[in-house]
Amino acid sequence: MFISETKIRVRYGETDKMGYVYYGNYPLYYEVARAEMLRTLNWSYRKMEEEGVILPVASLNIKYIKPAFYDDELTVRTTLKEFPGVKICFYHEVFNEKNELINIGEVTLVFVNFETMRPMSSPAKLNDELKKFFD
Amino acid sequence: MFISETKIRVRYGETDKMGYVYYGNYPLYYEVARAEMLRTLNWSYRKMEEEGVILPVASLNIKYIKPAFYDDELTVRTTLKEFPGVKICFYHEVFNEKNELINIGEVTLVFVNFETMRPMSSPAKLNDELKKFFD
Amino acid sequence: MFISETKIRVRYGETDKMGYVYYGNYPLYYEVARAEMLRTLNWSYRKMEEEGVILPVASLNIKYIKPAFYDDELTVRTTLKEFPGVKICFYHEVFNEKNELINIGEVTLVFVNFETMRPMSSPAKLNDELKKFFD
Amino acid sequence: MFISETKIRVRYGETDKMGYVYYGNYPLYYEVARAEMLRTLNWSYRKMEEEGVILPVASLNIKYIKPAFYDDELTVRTTLKEFPGVKICFYHEVFNEKNELINIGEVTLVFVNFETMRPMSSPAKLNDELKKFFD
Repeated sequence: MFISETKIRVRYGETDKMGYVYYGNYPLYYEVARAEMLRTLNWSYRKMEEEGVILPVASLNIKYIKPAFYDDELTVRTTLKEFPGVKICFYHEVFNEKNELINIGEVTLVFVNFETMRPMSSPAKLNDELKKFFD
Repeated sequence: MFISETKIRVRYGETDKMGYVYYGNYPLYYEVARAEMLRTLNWSYRKMEEEGVILPVASLNIKYIKPAFYDDELTVRTTLKEFPGVKICFYHEVFNEKNELINIGEVTLVFVNFETMRPMSSPAKLNDELKKFFD
Repeated sequence: MFISETKIRVRYGETDKMGYVYYGNYPLYYEVARAEMLRTLNWSYRKMEEEGVILPVASLNIKYIKPAFYDDELTVRTTLKEFPGVKICFYHEVFNEKNELINIGEVTLVFVNFETMRPMSSPAKLNDELKKFFD
Repeated sequence: MFISETKIRVRYGETDKMGYVYYGNYPLYYEVARAEMLRTLNWSYRKMEEEGVILPVASLNIKYIKPAFYDDELTVRTTLKEFPGVKICFYHEVFNEKNELINIGEVTLVFVNFETMRPMSSPAKLNDELKKFFD
């Protein structure tokens, strides 16, 4: 299991007229969280794309528990519960400043070879970095 | 059962560097689709809020099947499968111009009294409009 | 001079906690308005990109006069005051349902050859369509 | 004169199909930059709103020089050139990782009393914090 935490400050433009973070903005936060998680492995999503692997999203599931508000500094705790194969699944828990769990998001992405546009296995270099968390 | 269809044209700013509609923009499309569905009942989400009922989102589930591209005119077919209670669940199927199903989204919202901030039943006026679809 | 009008319905996710359309969302509306303007010429921005011409934005100037609100149906009146050269400048006036002018935006874009990444003149086919408005 | 710098990492969802940060996303970055600037004064935009002062945007001017790309860590240098009155004007220069100036944005906001909805002077507490920079 591999766990990482990322801080995200809520922007004004991400709130809606209810005063809450719009429900459609959490996918952006999850995206930041998974990129930062991979960065801690010294691994970069951008570089992977440059090497011809893209990672489109296959599914997204969110359970909203409490709202977040403007200027809140949220903590996104991201867990990789399973070693990736053709798919990689990130489990995100978002906490507010009082450490209350405000939502849970699961995002499953698929490794795709950009040339053939066919699914492929998780890149070997990424697997090497991840191995130590799944012994 | 109550079904309605809404057309949405993909904006440039809604695409990402893959050239696809960003996965986090579909919740916006679903939002448009459910507002338009209710508008066909001569019922307005805005008016409901002005009358003190808000409708925060409780859960969101998306299955992504194919990408959408800039300038595509998408059709969102929205189905209300069950008569609303404290919750209302919209089932959205998004089709591209070739009539291919590109994703499916389920959004569950909760009726909340804005004064007490407590869950409440679906407003009577909305129920009156919906009855005919659930005989 | 070439003038066109486009209707845009404000989405919930485009409002902010003030209850106004977020100031950073008008560029999206202007984008829709200029794409729709060109569509009336039977000309497509998407097709132009596929033919190797991109149109990055060089400058944007907005004067905000009044706010717009959720569910407002705005009218964007777009004017091409000058025949395009290397640059094309769209002048957008946004009106609310009471026909009040709520903001003015000027967007200047540059025609760029995607292969060489150098500025180029407005495509001949577009010029042909535009000629009649500038006699 | 008061100058501050903020780092912002480009999100995937902020890029468009050209691979550039969408032109309409820079206003979000400027918003973050001015909030962070004020935070260095131990002053909070959120708190100001809670105390009944809102700050709608009156004008926005952007000159785009170079594109920004996914995962770039941008530096927004924000300058308050003049002591605020009824209006406050932020001057933003955005630099990429090579320290190239990629765009310049000027955002003018107006202090408004939320109860009366009338323009008002910059709050005394903010003025106190700003004085030292304008001697």
